[in-house]
Amino acid sequence: MELSLFNILDVLGTIAFAISGALSAMNRRLDLFGIFIIAFVTAIGGGTVRDILIGETPVTWMENTVYVYLIGVVTILAIIFRNKINYLKKSLFLFDTIGLGVFTITGVETGIQNDLDPIISVALGAMTGTFGGVIRDILCNEIPVIFRKEIYATACLIGALAYVTLYDLGMDSDVIYIVTSLTVISIRIVVVKYHITLPSFYPTSPNSSRIR
Amino acid sequence: MELSLFNILDVLGTIAFAISGALSAMNRRLDLFGIFIIAFVTAIGGGTVRDILIGETPVTWMENTVYVYLIGVVTILAIIFRNKINYLKKSLFLFDTIGLGVFTITGVETGIQNDLDPIISVALGAMTGTFGGVIRDILCNEIPVIFRKEIYATACLIGALAYVTLYDLGMDSDVIYIVTSLTVISIRIVVVKYHITLPSFYPTSPNSSRIR
Amino acid sequence: MELSLFNILDVLGTIAFAISGALSAMNRRLDLFGIFIIAFVTAIGGGTVRDILIGETPVTWMENTVYVYLIGVVTILAIIFRNKINYLKKSLFLFDTIGLGVFTITGVETGIQNDLDPIISVALGAMTGTFGGVIRDILCNEIPVIFRKEIYATACLIGALAYVTLYDLGMDSDVIYIVTSLTVISIRIVVVKYHITLPSFYPTSPNSSRIR
Repeated sequence: MELSLFNILDVLGTIAFAISGALSAMNRRLDLFGIFIIAFVTAIGGGTVRDILIGETPVTWMENTVYVYLIGVVTILAIIFRNKINYLKKSLFLFDTIGLGVFTITGVETGIQNDLDPIISVALGAMTGTFGGVIRDILCNEIPVIFRKEIYATACLIGALAYVTLYDLGMDSDVIYIVTSLTVISIRIVVVKYHITLPSFYPTSPNSSRIR
Repeated sequence: MELSLFNILDVLGTIAFAISGALSAMNRRLDLFGIFIIAFVTAIGGGTVRDILIGETPVTWMENTVYVYLIGVVTILAIIFRNKINYLKKSLFLFDTIGLGVFTITGVETGIQNDLDPIISVALGAMTGTFGGVIRDILCNEIPVIFRKEIYATACLIGALAYVTLYDLGMDSDVIYIVTSLTVISIRIVVVKYHITLPSFYPTSPNSSRIR
Repeated sequence: MELSLFNILDVLGTIAFAISGALSAMNRRLDLFGIFIIAFVTAIGGGTVRDILIGETPVTWMENTVYVYLIGVVTILAIIFRNKINYLKKSLFLFDTIGLGVFTITGVETGIQNDLDPIISVALGAMTGTFGGVIRDILCNEIPVIFRKEIYATACLIGALAYVTLYDLGMDSDVIYIVTSLTVISIRIVVVKYHITLPSFYPTSPNSSRIR
């Protein structure tokens, strides 16, 4: 694949999600290959859901081995430097956010390329961005990332809305990529730094969730 | 889409599942967009699984934005009236049951339209009917609905069996839809009202489940 | 379908996974049809993931009813003999392992038939072999099988690597099937018998998994 801005961001996102998957797996005391599998599923999960929903099969990672080798190398490095990674927390958070932003972009773009309605493209972007982390958390029996009070899905959706808006304005794709990524990244950084949370709407009656 | 009986039922089912998803999300204290995502996934989950298994991609909701807007409006209403919803419990239970019945129908019908074996159509119907709720519960870390002692999956399967039987008898499709829906609805209402449960077969030896 | 060695192994694997699913469901006190659904999903889960990823839809079990009836009969037998099954534990463990081996083979073979890179075929084989059990455990709210310290995924991956290696050496397919199966089976038996575990890499710092 030629090295466009999009691909560079895509590689950064894949690296970030692979590392986060490897860390979750190590924390769950998985064995060596278990760590590789979780890292792999986390990194390719979002894109795989995107490809399956759209019917683009065999899914992308099957036709492009670069990602598989990349994930393998990243996982080995994550294992070696597992105790150093605390010092990298900030850059990891940044990578994870870049991943969220990039996979949101690939989701929205896939929707547009398939002439789908803008709102559908936004939904596709949000799923592509968040599902890698969701699958990782479900496999690791952790509370899915979209539940952590961090406007995770929200940053993703706002970025997707920015994308379709700029696209309608006829902006250049590279500009759109940068603006969308920076939107997601800046929202998450600001939100986490200042512990901002969106309103949640807990019913005052505790049992109102059981609908029978 | 023209407004056939099928579409009316389908809309009712989508509304019901969107509400149940929004309620589960609010109960999990998700933020605003998290609530939308869970409501969305719950409402389109069953149909998405159906489309993916059959290879009908892009999946239905991607080509028909009506559902997306419908889910959005329903979710907003669910948030506004979250404390009133207790009073609506019975109607919600009914809606949820209608959703179960309708998505069972769409699943069975998809199987028949693809010339699949009747028993396959029944299995497809059961999965389409139950998986929206299962995905909602897995994402919300709750015990999947098919595990609650309510003959949930059973009502679904009996309805699916009724569908294929009536279809073999050459009944009119609208008649089949009504009978199938009423079968599922009446089974669930009677079962929940009188706390009827199917036999479960718990092994007398506690550790017989661990197969190693 | 003609009765090749491959099909015989495939049937054994399906039986094994159906039984393990039925046992998990009974242990969860599911009702009658709930048991059938979990047994069904466990037995066809791995192959379904394989077919969806590769775009081979409608998925295999939809076009071949033999499996559905087979799973039905096996589930009924599992219910009847649920208290005898403890005596069968060893043979069940063996069946489960055969299932793991066989579905690994079908995954790798699907990759090769679609001219995918060997490493992709290995990944596809590992997913096909393990996901039936993973889906069963997620639906049953149990810790996914790949997390149990049993080199489950590892046996699977080593078997897949053996497959592609022998394939490159131009071996006869039946020979490859047998060697791959025996590789997975012998690894699991030895590992479980002697409680061998691969190294896991738990970070010395407890919170190094939270990447923010």
